[in-house]
This record gives sequence, C-alpha cells and structure tokens, in this order.
Amino acid sequence: MTQKPTLLAAAAREQGNALPVWFMRQAGRSLPEYRAVREGTAMLDSCRRPEMVVEITMQPVRRHDVDAAIFFSDIMVPLAAAGVGLEIKAGVGPVITDPIRTAQQVHELPELHPEAIPDIAESIRGIRAELPADKALIGFAGAPFTLASYLVEGGPSKDYARTKALMAADPVLWDELCGKLARISATFLRVQVDAGAQAIQLFDSWAGSLAPMDYATRVLPHSGRVMAHVADVPRIHFGVGTGELLRLMSQAGTEVVGVDWRVPLDEASRRIGPLHAVQGNLDPALLTAPWEVIAERARDVIRAGAKAPGHIFNLGHGVPATADPDVLTRLVALVHEEGPALRAEAATR
Amino acid sequence: MTQKPTLLAAAAREQGNALPVWFMRQAGRSLPEYRAVREGTAMLDSCRRPEMVVEITMQPVRRHDVDAAIFFSDIMVPLAAAGVGLEIKAGVGPVITDPIRTAQQVHELPELHPEAIPDIAESIRGIRAELPADKALIGFAGAPFTLASYLVEGGPSKDYARTKALMAADPVLWDELCGKLARISATFLRVQVDAGAQAIQLFDSWAGSLAPMDYATRVLPHSGRVMAHVADVPRIHFGVGTGELLRLMSQAGTEVVGVDWRVPLDEASRRIGPLHAVQGNLDPALLTAPWEVIAERARDVIRAGAKAPGHIFNLGHGVPATADPDVLTRLVALVHEEGPALRAEAATR
Repeated sequence: MTQKPTLLAAAAREQGNALPVWFMRQAGRSLPEYRAVREGTAMLDSCRRPEMVVEITMQPVRRHDVDAAIFFSDIMVPLAAAGVGLEIKAGVGPVITDPIRTAQQVHELPELHPEAIPDIAESIRGIRAELPADKALIGFAGAPFTLASYLVEGGPSKDYARTKALMAADPVLWDELCGKLARISATFLRVQVDAGAQAIQLFDSWAGSLAPMDYATRVLPHSGRVMAHVADVPRIHFGVGTGELLRLMSQAGTEVVGVDWRVPLDEASRRIGPLHAVQGNLDPALLTAPWEVIAERARDVIRAGAKAPGHIFNLGHGVPATADPDVLTRLVALVHEEGPALRAEAATR
Repeated sequence: MTQKPTLLAAAAREQGNALPVWFMRQAGRSLPEYRAVREGTAMLDSCRRPEMVVEITMQPVRRHDVDAAIFFSDIMVPLAAAGVGLEIKAGVGPVITDPIRTAQQVHELPELHPEAIPDIAESIRGIRAELPADKALIGFAGAPFTLASYLVEGGPSKDYARTKALMAADPVLWDELCGKLARISATFLRVQVDAGAQAIQLFDSWAGSLAPMDYATRVLPHSGRVMAHVADVPRIHFGVGTGELLRLMSQAGTEVVGVDWRVPLDEASRRIGPLHAVQGNLDPALLTAPWEVIAERARDVIRAGAKAPGHIFNLGHGVPATADPDVLTRLVALVHEEGPALRAEAATR
C-alpha cells in the first residue's frame, strides 16, 4: 500500500485539503549537517559525487519531514559538465572563465551529452532508494534565460545590461544561444526524470528583471522547449519578482507556477487561471521574526493558497543561509497540522 | 512671457501632446563633467556645498536639454545632517556607524531642524536662478521605509531581513522609527519647496521588496505623512519592482506614480486609475543596446504612456554609471521631436 505523494496530487489539482510543503534551497547552508558534509569540497564537485548528493538531498527530508526532496545541484552543473569553463566562488556565485562576447563563442558552445553525466542518474536512483513512498523527488535545472545571463555577464549581475543588450540587438544570435541552453537544460532534466525524478522545477531565477514583452518573445519559447522535453512529469516554473510574468510563465508547459512573496496566492491564481496549481510564498526574510509572526503569515499563505485550484506550500524564494533550521521544522509541522482545517475553512468562504 | 514647465502640466494631467522628459540620476557618474567636479570630494560633502550642488544639478540640463532638474543630493543627507553617524562608501553605498539594534536607539534618533540645513535652501535658490523658466526643479528625499532599511540593516541589503523582522515583530517600535524618519524627510523636502523646488520626488527605492499587506499597513501611512507636508507642489512617488504596489503608492498623496520597466505604462495606469499621471519607464539596462533598439523601445513607452491621463518620460530606474551620455541626449531629442505625434496618434486608437 503506497500513498501517492501529496505534492504530485497538488500538481494535478487533486489534493483536497492535504497541503504538501517543501522549501527551495532546503538542502543547503542553513543546515549544520550540510556544512559538515560539504566541508573541504568545492560546490561543483559536491554536486557530482552521488553519495554526497544523496546525503545532502535527504538531510532536510529527515530533519524537517518535508513532502519533497529537491535534487541537490547547482544551475551551473550542466554547463560545467558540457565543458563550459566556470567556477562557483564562495560569497560571489558563478564566475565564467570566458564570458560570451562574440557570435563565434555562441556557435562553439558545447552540447551536453547524457553520457557526460552518469553520476546524475546514479544520484537520482540513490535518492529514490532512500525516499519514503509518500514523498516526491523534484528534479532541478536552470532555465535558458538565467543560464544565458551568467554566460553573458560573466557572473551575477544587478541589471543584466549585457544580456538585455544582446537580446535586443541580435535576436537571431540570442535565439541560437538560448536554443543551445534549452537543449542543455532539457538533457539535464531528462536524465533526472529517466532515473526517477517524479517532478521537475525549472528555475528562471532572474526572469523577473525582464519586461513582459521581452519575456514573451525572447525567453518563454526557449523555456517552453525545455518543458516539452519532460512533459511526462509535473513541471514547476519559478522566478523571483515575476508578478507581471505569472500568466506567461504558466504557458511554458507548466503544471505549477512558483510565486514569490510579492503577490498573494489568490491574486496570483487569478492572473494564471484555473488550470494551474501555485507554489509558495512565505517571505523568507520573515524567518528571523518571532514565531507567532511567522505562524500568522504562514496561515495567511495557506488561506490564500486555498483559493487556487492547487497549492504547494513553500517560501517565496530560497532558504537564507542564516535561517534557523528549527523554525523550518516547526513551519512544516504547522502546515501539516493546521493546513487541512485552514484549507477547508477557506474553501467555504 | 514665461511658459509653464511641461513637467508641471503633465503632473496636473494637462499636458496635451507635449511630453516632458528627465532621467533619474541624470546628475551623476555617467557625465565626465560630473566626475571632474566631484573629484576629491566625498559624496556627502559634495551635497552640502551649494556651488557644487548647483553646478552638478545643472550639468544634465545643459547637456541633455531635459525638462527638469533633479536636486543633486543623496537620500542619506538629511540623516547625516540630523546627526546620524554614517558614510557613503564608494562601490558599497551607505554604511551606518551604529545600525539600529535596540529600542533605545530608536528613541534617541535625532530630529532634523531646518536650521541645520541652510545650505540646502541656498542650493535650491542657486539652481532656480540658473534654470530656464520652462524647466522645473524637482526636490528629492528618501522615503521612511527605505531610510529605515539602511538604518536597521547597517547598509545595502539583498533581502531586508532585519528590517522586515523588526516591522513584523514590533510594529509599535517600527512606527516610532518610521514616524521619526517621516518627519526628517518631510523637513528636508519642506526646506526645498520653501526655497523654490516646484515638485518633489519621494524615493522609496526598496519598497518593492515588501508584500502589499505590509506596505499598506506599515509603510504607506508614513510616506503619506511626508507627502502631506509638501501638498502644495506636485508629488512624484517612485520605487523599483513595485508592480503590486502601484495603486497603494498612488494613495500616499501623490500626483505622479513612477513605474519601473516591468509594468507597461498603460497597464500601470489601469491599476492606478484616472486621477494620477505616470512617470517612466524605459529599461535603463537597454541604454547599451544599439540606437535603433533604444529608439523603438522609447516609442513603445511613449505610446503606452499616451494611454495614461498624464505622462512624464523617464527611465524605469536611475541612469547607470556606464551609460553613454550621448545616448541620453539623443533620447531627449527623440522624446521632444517624436513624442507629440506619437501621443496624438496613440490617443486616436
């Protein structure tokens, strides 16, 4: 007798009053056991060692009792595996050895072959072997625009000026770049799904920096190609500051739209329409507030989410490194204990 | 025969097809003549020397023929003038000597007395003496939330976690803090208006990091108190990433709502309603794109702005330090030359 993971039921808009919860970046620096395991290992290396990936992915599931494991990886992993020169600098983020400055560099961007990442499949299988049947494993990849922004800027950026200039000045070259990145993301996700990932989340972390027209014409089609490659599992689509893009993002081939804390979930669902579940959206910056404040805000999120046809509880962005893990554990318990009644009550209004 | 500045007509929703234009941070690092004048002078010092303030404020008016001068200052100037220990570190931003960590520090936050800033009035009078009659001088201040975020975080922040935690955990102390900051901002603006500023812009740069409910209850009332203090001139209200807050921001006592590039101006105006003009909103990251791309986007902004009851052309955020001043000059010419016809054409659709 196995129970279908509630996360998958929510993605299918069939959760009833059950409310699944997980946290973006739940496997990471907020956990002392993570810091202990990672000690002395570079980020990109840690993502390629199946034993370590399984352990890190499982840590928050054991500790917090969340309803989903998110595959521990980094959005740069498939690029590095394809042969792009880069490193993850602590306190900075990804740094690209040769940022894209010429058309020739775009033409020469390497492909990612599944044979280059046998460890990814091995990690996924290892996680599934440990993960209880009522919890789901979510695969992970960065979306073409966000990957392109790192390749073009050379690292993190405040305004994405070079990326936007390329997109505007040379749409043909831009589409070639994003087409290649879409294939890399799609391969990375396909390997995960084939090995046992039961859902995927495409992170277009910085898409919210774009005007809707640019997103619609120059970004959405590429993300759509990634999504089409893994259409056999529920697909979650997330970015920060995407209030103006929520409906467009839902049209990429998406069952669940992730929403940051700026848009209440009932309003988000109104913009997206009745055919999609939503995920989110407690402000992670509030995790350092007193517990009663957090609890009240979490209840507000649950009530608003009950107005959507499906809801997966999450933060509005990743867990901050400074978050107290005990607060996250307590939050999971609140969602599980109070969620069903709050949902039932909200539904009758 | 003096002509009323078109910026004031636009704020009053009486501009017809004329289209005023200025740029946030037009007086600043993008201009070589600015860098020459500032050389060797610390930021906060430069804001307190009337001769320098007049020169810097006038530089972009002379060079670009923009329709408004924005008073050259820094949002930290009134805090420093009140006696708060801080410095502006190059490449970092404001750094507070003793970030607010206790209630006692809030109780002891000093007041700003007009007598502490006679130079501000002198600077304003100096600018008005040089500014042509068809151009408007816009006064400048930071809004209570944005000022509070610097005081509480100790400097620039990515997530405003301490600020949000204080707001949520101790609303009474938060309101005391923001009430004091509102008085400081109000005094700073009142001095400018009394000396001749013909409009003001309140910069709540980081308000877009807040959920709408928090903005409505804990931020808007304080910004409203600032606005009420200068209700005798048109008031522009601006923040970045404020798509979800536009209507609320319009309710602070505001004639013009500044909009960043994420929300098209016709949609922004729809959210705000017919009683307010809008300002914006070309993406400043596009200023490095080829001219034809910039021109086409500027025309899109003009067409969308024509659907609002009033429009002041601007960027969606400040001029980047790397911007080519010649592009800005060309952009002003485009707005002046093509704006009226584009507005007339858009109005007939």
